[in-house]
Amino acid sequence: MPVQQNNQVDVKSWKLAPHVEALKASIIREILKISSQPGVINFAGGLPAPELFPLEDMKLATADAIDKYGAACVQYSLSAGIPILRELIAKRATERGEATSMGNILLTSGAQQGIELMGRIFLAPGDYVLVENPTYLGALQAFNFYQARYATVEMDDEGMIIDQLEAQIKKYHPKLIYTVSNFQNPTGITMTKERRVALIEIAGKYGIPIVDDNPYGDIRFSGEPVPTLKSIGGDAVIVLRTFSKVMAPGIRLGWMNGPVPMLAQVEKVRQCADLHPNALVQHMVYEYVAAGKLEPHIEIIKDNYRNKRDVMMETMRNEFPEEIKSPVPDGGMFLWCELPAHVSAKDLLPKAVELKVAYVYGEPFYPNGGGENTFRLNFSNAQPDAIVEGITRLGKLFKKHI
Amino acid sequence: MPVQQNNQVDVKSWKLAPHVEALKASIIREILKISSQPGVINFAGGLPAPELFPLEDMKLATADAIDKYGAACVQYSLSAGIPILRELIAKRATERGEATSMGNILLTSGAQQGIELMGRIFLAPGDYVLVENPTYLGALQAFNFYQARYATVEMDDEGMIIDQLEAQIKKYHPKLIYTVSNFQNPTGITMTKERRVALIEIAGKYGIPIVDDNPYGDIRFSGEPVPTLKSIGGDAVIVLRTFSKVMAPGIRLGWMNGPVPMLAQVEKVRQCADLHPNALVQHMVYEYVAAGKLEPHIEIIKDNYRNKRDVMMETMRNEFPEEIKSPVPDGGMFLWCELPAHVSAKDLLPKAVELKVAYVYGEPFYPNGGGENTFRLNFSNAQPDAIVEGITRLGKLFKKHI
Repeated sequence: MPVQQNNQVDVKSWKLAPHVEALKASIIREILKISSQPGVINFAGGLPAPELFPLEDMKLATADAIDKYGAACVQYSLSAGIPILRELIAKRATERGEATSMGNILLTSGAQQGIELMGRIFLAPGDYVLVENPTYLGALQAFNFYQARYATVEMDDEGMIIDQLEAQIKKYHPKLIYTVSNFQNPTGITMTKERRVALIEIAGKYGIPIVDDNPYGDIRFSGEPVPTLKSIGGDAVIVLRTFSKVMAPGIRLGWMNGPVPMLAQVEKVRQCADLHPNALVQHMVYEYVAAGKLEPHIEIIKDNYRNKRDVMMETMRNEFPEEIKSPVPDGGMFLWCELPAHVSAKDLLPKAVELKVAYVYGEPFYPNGGGENTFRLNFSNAQPDAIVEGITRLGKLFKKHI
Repeated sequence: MPVQQNNQVDVKSWKLAPHVEALKASIIREILKISSQPGVINFAGGLPAPELFPLEDMKLATADAIDKYGAACVQYSLSAGIPILRELIAKRATERGEATSMGNILLTSGAQQGIELMGRIFLAPGDYVLVENPTYLGALQAFNFYQARYATVEMDDEGMIIDQLEAQIKKYHPKLIYTVSNFQNPTGITMTKERRVALIEIAGKYGIPIVDDNPYGDIRFSGEPVPTLKSIGGDAVIVLRTFSKVMAPGIRLGWMNGPVPMLAQVEKVRQCADLHPNALVQHMVYEYVAAGKLEPHIEIIKDNYRNKRDVMMETMRNEFPEEIKSPVPDGGMFLWCELPAHVSAKDLLPKAVELKVAYVYGEPFYPNGGGENTFRLNFSNAQPDAIVEGITRLGKLFKKHI
């Protein structure tokens, strides 16, 4: 029997802050509700492959952490995160060419909190953030809370079109440049080295921090590695990273790699939000990584995702009309598709769901509108046979409507 | 060898949001730095007793959760928290007289995130929050980020002095009433039933939500239980609770119990901050509580804290000058002390640290100033012999300076 609250209070008389009233709920949440109906092949989400989560190793690492650190791994702890894990992350970054000390690392509750903290310290109402067009929807939502506006730079197969950058900076004076430089969500595109060098030069000229949201960077399964923005730009770049895509997202652990004076400010505004990152999970992840288990696990993920991407693209080649364009992602979890200009991916979605297959249409990833003919496919979560079946169904739909 | 970032960027040229520049770092953090020097008996912090953390049971519960729920306990999850834990929390609340459904419960990263989320949905710059004077410093810090101002109501041994409430509401039109009704931090005082009824009536008259921050409510070790604000006020009251004080704080898991329409708003602004609460910890805590382990553990905590409080108060009676007043707390973790009006607890702190004992002076708990002659002692963290030694040292200091 449902329980009723016993006093009748007119909650609607409670006044929310005006900027909160104005916030819209995530369109992706709505799509996920539709697409998570039983029997729907779901390319709409952004979920890592659950069959790869290192469950037994995480169980072991938790037990090891409790045995080794005792009460310390569940007591109140430091706002920036535990020193042993910050040191280990700094060492790994330095080995990859990003000169990093423990003081440059602040642990976050997933990379999403990293984005939130960037909005939290940098943005006043009406401030501009410069973003790729399209860009990660979760970043737009985080910045929207701070009443951000957006200056956009278009994308091509080499990433952000740098030729547009300086004019946008001069026009909008953005407080931040936000990029997903590797295997971008939603397009899967990776920024070339030349573009990275140019981005850092121009941002430096105007003194604008670059936020490189890099959740997928370790999952390159084809093509040649490109130097990270941090390895080129040093202190000019704030990197947001996460264990979500290489271990598991439900443990909510990521980190920020940035200049020490800025991290002192981040620590201040983070402490009043949630005191500190989960101490038990930090110790667990430390034990897992220190035992050398992460690197071989990443290789397993790469093999799995490469195969799934190949299956999806092969099926698309066979089943999609030729008019649909799709850049090949060399890593990450997403494939981006462009329909002919007159076809609306949003209008076709209900028809796709009737066929028991779902994608996310592209519009919400364009902060200032556009992208009506685009959509995103996730290839990491479904199994290969479901990928073949789902893409085949979509192919039939598109053939009918193009 | 310390690693240097390789590019010299003038990070100071980066412009933070003005309201962030204006934020002060926590005074308590500074005090904790001083007081955590080796050999200092530390009554300054607010740490639960580490010797009581149910480490083996948490290890078991983690293994059980992974075995039972598999990938689901580390995959992306719902922003409000997992249904089984929300349901269990609702059932426990209902059993205690707070009619609650699963839809009333939203899991948070500790009660601190609950406070943050209240600021996040309700406060625009310059809005007033009505608080007890003194009040929990962490709440002031969370609300300060949103540029709150404070209307205050004084405290006596029965809690918030309700006679002052209506005049303050009329003068300042607060958006929220924030109270720590049980074993308040910092004073240890519990609001009487009469005051609770009056608070709910007056808040209801003006349509102002009451936020009852209740981290210590389960830890009553003496005196008679008082009905919770929620059990009297129903939907008029938003309750913030946590597993920090009854299991362990480092797992960062708390919850909010509030009206459904408001929680929909909270979910929206929480999702863009950190997506969802830690799924692994939620499943672990569910297994622990569902196995019936929490209730007996709370009894162990009560016995331990009652004894520590008794040791501390007994030593204070023997060693402190009679002029120092201190209300007896019936639960929680804190003892509040009032020196004669002319004595500054802040000025005496460095002398206390010289004697290798630390407390927190009261000023930071008063949002609009005052309380120079007050200080807070934590009795949950130190062992009884250290409590005797530390209070004896403080007694010598106070005898000299009063």
